[in-house]
Amino acid sequence: MSRLLTTTPAGDGFRMPAEFEPHAGCWMLWPERPDNWRLGAKPAQQAFAAVAAAIATGEPVTVGVSGRQFVNARAMLPETVRVVELSSDDAWMRDVGPTFVVDRRGERRGVDWGFNAWGGIAGGLYFPWDQDALVARKVLEVEGCDRYRAPFVLEGGAIHVDGQGTLLTTEECLLNPNRNPQLDRGQLEILLHEYLGVTHVIWLGKGVVDDETDGHIDNLCCFVRPGEVALTWTDDKRDPQYRISLDAYERLMEARDARGRRLKVHKLPQPGPLHRTPEEVAGLDVAGEGGHARAAGDRLAASYVNFYIGNSVVVMPLLDPKTDRLAARRLQRIFPERRVIGVPSREILLGGGNIHCITQQVPAARPRRRKETGP
Amino acid sequence: MSRLLTTTPAGDGFRMPAEFEPHAGCWMLWPERPDNWRLGAKPAQQAFAAVAAAIATGEPVTVGVSGRQFVNARAMLPETVRVVELSSDDAWMRDVGPTFVVDRRGERRGVDWGFNAWGGIAGGLYFPWDQDALVARKVLEVEGCDRYRAPFVLEGGAIHVDGQGTLLTTEECLLNPNRNPQLDRGQLEILLHEYLGVTHVIWLGKGVVDDETDGHIDNLCCFVRPGEVALTWTDDKRDPQYRISLDAYERLMEARDARGRRLKVHKLPQPGPLHRTPEEVAGLDVAGEGGHARAAGDRLAASYVNFYIGNSVVVMPLLDPKTDRLAARRLQRIFPERRVIGVPSREILLGGGNIHCITQQVPAARPRRRKETGP
Repeated sequence: MSRLLTTTPAGDGFRMPAEFEPHAGCWMLWPERPDNWRLGAKPAQQAFAAVAAAIATGEPVTVGVSGRQFVNARAMLPETVRVVELSSDDAWMRDVGPTFVVDRRGERRGVDWGFNAWGGIAGGLYFPWDQDALVARKVLEVEGCDRYRAPFVLEGGAIHVDGQGTLLTTEECLLNPNRNPQLDRGQLEILLHEYLGVTHVIWLGKGVVDDETDGHIDNLCCFVRPGEVALTWTDDKRDPQYRISLDAYERLMEARDARGRRLKVHKLPQPGPLHRTPEEVAGLDVAGEGGHARAAGDRLAASYVNFYIGNSVVVMPLLDPKTDRLAARRLQRIFPERRVIGVPSREILLGGGNIHCITQQVPAARPRRRKETGP
Repeated sequence: MSRLLTTTPAGDGFRMPAEFEPHAGCWMLWPERPDNWRLGAKPAQQAFAAVAAAIATGEPVTVGVSGRQFVNARAMLPETVRVVELSSDDAWMRDVGPTFVVDRRGERRGVDWGFNAWGGIAGGLYFPWDQDALVARKVLEVEGCDRYRAPFVLEGGAIHVDGQGTLLTTEECLLNPNRNPQLDRGQLEILLHEYLGVTHVIWLGKGVVDDETDGHIDNLCCFVRPGEVALTWTDDKRDPQYRISLDAYERLMEARDARGRRLKVHKLPQPGPLHRTPEEVAGLDVAGEGGHARAAGDRLAASYVNFYIGNSVVVMPLLDPKTDRLAARRLQRIFPERRVIGVPSREILLGGGNIHCITQQVPAARPRRRKETGP
């Protein structure tokens, strides 16, 4: 039961809580398509299962899986995880799932964004995406949450909020003509206000180098608490990421949030740079028409910013032995009240994203524990 | 999340409540296969939607549907009904769904029976049935109920209980060698005790004439409250149903329930007899190998006993203008505290069952309203 509403979240007094506010749970999808996940998706499935297990230590996790993979997913996932049948075209719950909004009375609803596979028929990553486009509705049916249908294209990974009125995004993605060519910056800001309850947008420029999402914010920079963000960073001036991160840093230092605060920026070291190996490409099915070809030597959009903030844990990608430990130490300092769990996630990265991209939190309808909403 | 338990319900203090005890909700499946539901299942889908709408007036209803039919089912079902993706081989939730059991502390668990499509490869109704065999697990995952896996074949429509220790069934079905050839009557009684918490079994003989389930009890006779049953009946001695119903009546009059009570038997008039028309057969796809062929002139196993007892309603099949009104009046007398709603259900009957067969109640974990548990 999920009624389609014809009003808007802001009009009804709803807002999107920050990821670091308390959760009722977390949704994921199960990776399966052999043209995006090598070796029949078995290595990726192990990584997804490890992510689910880590998050499930602090909140209920539900994994949606196709009928074909139900028995296998049920066997590979820990018993503490709920497995439900839910078809999709790939496994990016952050981008195809609903964005949950809450109001002061404790009601929870979902926003069902337009979805065009990160760029539509010409520039998108695969075709068709009809099952992805239904995922938000199906999640909201299971959750029993009413649904707002947003009249524009947006992926959950393209936005971050502080829960106090501020939204963080990138121009590269939101202003990309392959998403909403009919909308300009000002019109998008109005729609983001209407559908997420935010009052102020901080625009960064480009996302991480060679990020096939057209520069999703969730791979570049995220709120870690009100007034503080984490940013992927390199000191190597010859790396194209240097200019991107520097530009983001400068914009962040100039920005004010919705409450007028300056931002504190935590830099996380960039792993690698990492590249796709010939062996990794050999394990893929050839992509069909409209699919995104993978080639050996491709630079991978690796970033430690792509972590998930759970109720009691922060689940972060382990990507590069040279930088993993430093990134984990920094994250543990940023989140002293949560346990940082690293999950080897190169197999997720090979598919085009990372831990944040494959998760979607369900906020608690009523805040339960103050300390979990940040200091 | 649904743990597999290695104990048994009776050993853990669980029992199956009667259908007339309070419900937390009801599960159904969506009819789709065009070799069993004529005209692409559209008429049956309308009938199923009407059943769901009627039950939803008194309890939450969830309908499981394949990914192919999700959008259509969502559009045809009322907004008050929850629709979740759930593959199956056909739409008989009574027989493929879990049987729920509860304990005194208010916990609810599910029994996942063996299933062989009403008779296995030789005598069953279709092949394969691999998706049906997963339905109970999937329902229990969504419900978050732990699972007992029963080590024998049983369909939910083959049993009725009074919630006070008594189980009603038929020899034609339970002792049929196409189900559990390795088990005799005594062994089955022990297993029924172990998995449903019953202490006494009342065996009737045959089920309704030409019932392709091998005589499921839920088309012949059911408990309407402790100590009282409804039985399908005809006074026409030339009709083969006469001897079957008379035999059942005589056994019921001789029986005692688990508490030593004699039974009161309410007779419900038999509709028809009804037969499949050439036009109805013409609307079917030809069944594949292992499928049950349908022919014009087939006698349909029509019975008013195949109703669903909801929290506030009794949803009964309307099958024959000559008898519908009398049957409805009798049912309303039997259930004065519930509203009897008739749903035209010949389209369900054509598929091989009726309203009880397509539903499965989820008992309330804690009894809420005494008056709903019967007088």
